[in-house]
Formats: sequence, structure tokens, C-alpha cells
Amino acid sequence: METVKLSLQQVNDLAVRVLTSNGMGADHANAIAKVITAGQRDECHSHGIYRLIVCVKSLRDGKLNGHARPLVQDVSPAAVRVNADFGYSQLAFEMGLPVLVEKARTVGIAALAINDCFHFSALWPEVEAIAAEGLAALAMTPSHSWVAPAGGTKPVFGTNPIAFAWPREGALPFVFDFATSAIARGDIELHRRAGKEIPTGWAVDAAGNPTTNPAAALQGAMLTFGGHKGSALAAMVELIAGPLIGDLTSLESQKFDEGVGATPCHGELIVAFNPPVLAGERAVAGSRYAEELFDAIVGQGARLPSQRRFDARARSESRGVEVPAHLYNDILALVRD
Amino acid sequence: METVKLSLQQVNDLAVRVLTSNGMGADHANAIAKVITAGQRDECHSHGIYRLIVCVKSLRDGKLNGHARPLVQDVSPAAVRVNADFGYSQLAFEMGLPVLVEKARTVGIAALAINDCFHFSALWPEVEAIAAEGLAALAMTPSHSWVAPAGGTKPVFGTNPIAFAWPREGALPFVFDFATSAIARGDIELHRRAGKEIPTGWAVDAAGNPTTNPAAALQGAMLTFGGHKGSALAAMVELIAGPLIGDLTSLESQKFDEGVGATPCHGELIVAFNPPVLAGERAVAGSRYAEELFDAIVGQGARLPSQRRFDARARSESRGVEVPAHLYNDILALVRD
Repeated sequence: METVKLSLQQVNDLAVRVLTSNGMGADHANAIAKVITAGQRDECHSHGIYRLIVCVKSLRDGKLNGHARPLVQDVSPAAVRVNADFGYSQLAFEMGLPVLVEKARTVGIAALAINDCFHFSALWPEVEAIAAEGLAALAMTPSHSWVAPAGGTKPVFGTNPIAFAWPREGALPFVFDFATSAIARGDIELHRRAGKEIPTGWAVDAAGNPTTNPAAALQGAMLTFGGHKGSALAAMVELIAGPLIGDLTSLESQKFDEGVGATPCHGELIVAFNPPVLAGERAVAGSRYAEELFDAIVGQGARLPSQRRFDARARSESRGVEVPAHLYNDILALVRD
Repeated sequence: METVKLSLQQVNDLAVRVLTSNGMGADHANAIAKVITAGQRDECHSHGIYRLIVCVKSLRDGKLNGHARPLVQDVSPAAVRVNADFGYSQLAFEMGLPVLVEKARTVGIAALAINDCFHFSALWPEVEAIAAEGLAALAMTPSHSWVAPAGGTKPVFGTNPIAFAWPREGALPFVFDFATSAIARGDIELHRRAGKEIPTGWAVDAAGNPTTNPAAALQGAMLTFGGHKGSALAAMVELIAGPLIGDLTSLESQKFDEGVGATPCHGELIVAFNPPVLAGERAVAGSRYAEELFDAIVGQGARLPSQRRFDARARSESRGVEVPAHLYNDILALVRD
């Protein structure tokens, strides 16, 4: 396959150029380019420059506001709310981040609620940004109602990711970010395009029967990971990142979409924790116990959750990234003069 | 099987009598009797009066302090810490609860960190107590290192439960409380006693091979639920309810036990969320979305997580409970004059 070699700076510049030339404000374009570059760098290809195709489509469709003005509201010593004004979530997150960090540093735990945002990105860039400030972070967001609850067959939940980061001194953070669905919706779509069957356990068809047919799965309902436990967690994500902050569940977000098939629009909740405040004088011992935990995992040959991504990051930072030429050309063709 | 019929008040009184006559302070005995009665009421038999046998053994062994004086420390507008003074966790929780509730009501999100506690109870009584105050709650605690990380075969994690409650107006809360291990350790123990094989996926033996032999499983390592996702969550529980609050991981708690096989001693983190502060004027809509979510689950014939427990509760509250006569006699025999 023919590829094009790009530095991370070139990836970022390309993303900004594509987005601004399609009418997006520079502040939004810069915030989005940053996470797209991070996705490409970490070889999370579905969150890399490929996403620009989806972003530009949404901009051209007029479904979302490329000049949205997020409004930061200081709610309390432990809470900040950012209304994203129906723009993409990234700028709202960037504006809320310093307020969240300051509050968590001071009182030990704080929440950032983002409302009315279109959401397409992974959550790990956000929890990693908080870990870079020496704080632990937990983030959740619903999506569209695609996933059946345990014991049911009709879609209720979104793919509802949970992301967590723990800061480590002199090392990349402990980070995970996973969907509470058995598999990402995009993976079922990829199987459909490739004409391949999906494993059992991923989905049921519209009649509620287990299916290995990806098209039938997309018409039916996806399943959660881990049976009734995964289903309970998916419900928690709905409640914490929806009703708790006065925002939409995946069911409501689906209704709001009105069949357009756009990126889900809803809310997001991020909680930041500051060990020195919560642990007091015991924080140093706590930090040591955490490192012993990681040693016990890695020492037996198991991997920490984001190791593959961090390996890719190290490669990309020293050598840049290689992008399939056809994808690069598709992206370039999005630029408007 | 011969049974003894008891009212919930009789269960509570019996528990207090057993504990105080074995030298436990009345304040601790009352706090523990309350959760033991709740366990019996909800037909969570391993957390009912059966637990008194374990509590009394721990008291008589002198491993824990039946007169521990928990110390409440007001850390910040969003955080309270209770040092349990190496007693059972229940009294520490009861003392921290009103402070946690007041803080969460005021600032929207607050944390209760309990340190240096012996922990034997389920977490649902605690998150339900918070939901009864109109707040959502998330609670976690490690245990002893019995569970291998995904990709590994050596025990690192505890059974590491996660519990969550969401308050509902005029209805019992949405509640779940589950171990991040594939199964409770007690279930493997029950299989061993009954001479029954365990299903694959629960555990590996000491050599790291999958096993269906419960005794081999107890010598080896349990597995997490949900593969690498469950493993990531188990690690998060370790970090959030351990190092974050300066307390022990399951590995450290196991070391602290020094082979005695007592109830794990470590910490617990509980986070309370107040929708009206976090959602502001959108809280009413949020509450409606939550009810629509529950309707969509129940309406398709699926169950909410604690339904079985709530059904048992309704039965027990109207008719009392029936306890096997041999268990009742064993408990009575624990009373010292």
C-alpha cells in the first residue's frame, strides 16, 4: 500500500487547514486538530485524520455550529459546567480544563460537566490531559441508543465509554478507555463492509435473536460487554453523564438526531481527583502502592491497558506517521480554497 | 429444612446481642446489626446473620478493635476523611455520612474516604443510604489479592466491588453492587464444600492453567469479569479506593493480614453527586430522562439490577424472615452471658 509520511506537526496543520477552510472557527479547529493528531500518533486510526471526513460532512450538513461559543459557568468550589453551545466538545473541554484542575487541586475532587456538545472523540485525550496535571480522572459519555440491556433485546444504551487515568511520576499515566458495549459500533460496520460474519455475543437482530450477520446486527441491538455487570455500568454511564448533569440519555440523543445519523449530541461528565488532598500525609505511601500494583501486573508479563498505544506514540514521535496515500488524498480534497 | 421465623427487629436485636456480649462496643454493634439485618431482609444470605459467625471469630481472635474510635476529618468543602481506627467500616461510614451528604448537597460532588477499616459488608447499604438523601453515589473498595489481571495468571487484584445508586422519586433507587471478579470468592468456596466443579472462566490454578477444580482455583488465581475491560476496572478500584486515599491495595492488604485470613483491612472511597447542583435548572428534565431510561429497560421485560433484592425486601418487611434452625442455633450459641 502506498503511504505518505507526515510529521505530527504536518498532521496537525492539515487538520486545521481542512477544518478552517470548511468554515470552522480557528479555536474549534485547533482544539479538534490536537485530538485528531493524538489519535493518529497513537495509531487509533478511527480517531486519526480519518475523522476529518466525518467532521467536514457534519459541518457541510449544517448539523453543528463551527463557531459555537462555549460558556463556562463556575458552579461551586467543586463543580464547573461548560455549555458547548451545540459545537464539538473539544473546545468546551479545553475551556473547562483549567477550572476543573484548579478546583480539584484545592478541594480534592471536582466535576466538569459539559452540556450540549457533539461528541466524536475518544475520552483518553481528556483523562490524559488531567493526569498530566498530576490528577486522577474519570470520564464518561453516552452516545446513541444502540445497545440492549442485559435480559433485553431492544436498544437503550449507547456504546457508553468509561475512561480513567492515574498520574505516574516520571512515566506515562495508567490509562484505559473502553466502550461498555461488547465491541465498538465501527467494528460491526467494518465487518459489514468486508462481508465478514461477526462473533456471537456482539449483537442480536431486530427480532431479538443472536446474530452473526453484521447488517442484521446494525438493524437490531448491540450487546454490552460482561453480561449483567457491563449492562449495569452502561446504565450508570447514562445516568452520570446524562440526567445527573441535566443532559440527554442515548435514547434522547437518538431522538434529537431525528434520523440524520449525525455525531451524537449530549453531555459528558469528567471527575478529577487530587491524591495529596484526599490522602493527606499518606499520599506518598499511596503513590508507592500504586507503583507496586503496576509492577505486579507488568512483572508477570501482563500489559497495562494503554501499552500498545504508548508504543505507537513513541514510534510516531520519533519518526512521524505513515498515512495511506488514498486516505491522504481524500483528506486533501476536503480543503476548500 | 427446619426454620425459625424472625421479625426484622428480632434479627437486629439478636445481632446486637451477639456482638456486644462478645465485647464489641454498642455503637459498633448497632451499626453492624443494621447492615446484617438489611442483608438478611434482602435475602443476601452471605451478608445476613451468617456474617455474625465471622465477626465474632474476628473479635475473639483480637485481630480488630471492637471499641475503635473513628475520627472524622473535614478535609475541604468537597472531601471528608474518616479514619476507622482499625475497627469495622460501618460506624466510620455512619459518622462520615452526614458530612458527605451536606458537602455534596452544597457543592454538587463530594468524596468520603474511609481509611484503616476492616471491611466485610456489601456496598449497596451505603450507596442506598446516600440515595435516600436524594443523591447519586458511587462506592469502591479493594479486598485481598486473589484475582489475576487480564493476560496474567498471578493474583494482584481483590474482588474489588463497584456499587452505584441513583435516587428515584417515589420509588426504590436504581442500585447495583458487583464484584469485578468473574464470581465472588465465596461461590468458589461453596463449590469446593459441595464437591462440585466450577465453570471455566472463573479461575486458573497455581501453574496458571484454566481450572474447573475449586480447590485448585483457591490456590491459584481468580479471573476478572469481562476480560481486559473488567481487569482495567479492577485496577481502577485498587487505585481509587487505595492509593488515591493513601490506603492499601489488595496486595498490601494481603501482606498486612500476615496469613491470618482475617477480613481485609484497607480503605474505601465513596463519591456522592447532587443532580440539582450539577444540572442546575436542567435537573427536572434530567430526572425525567432517567425515568424514561428505566421504563425502556423494564418495558422490554429486562430487569433493573436490584429487583430480586427489592422483591425479597418487600416480602421480609411484611412477613419477617425465615432462618435455617441450625444457623439460628449456631448464632445463639455465640452469645456470651
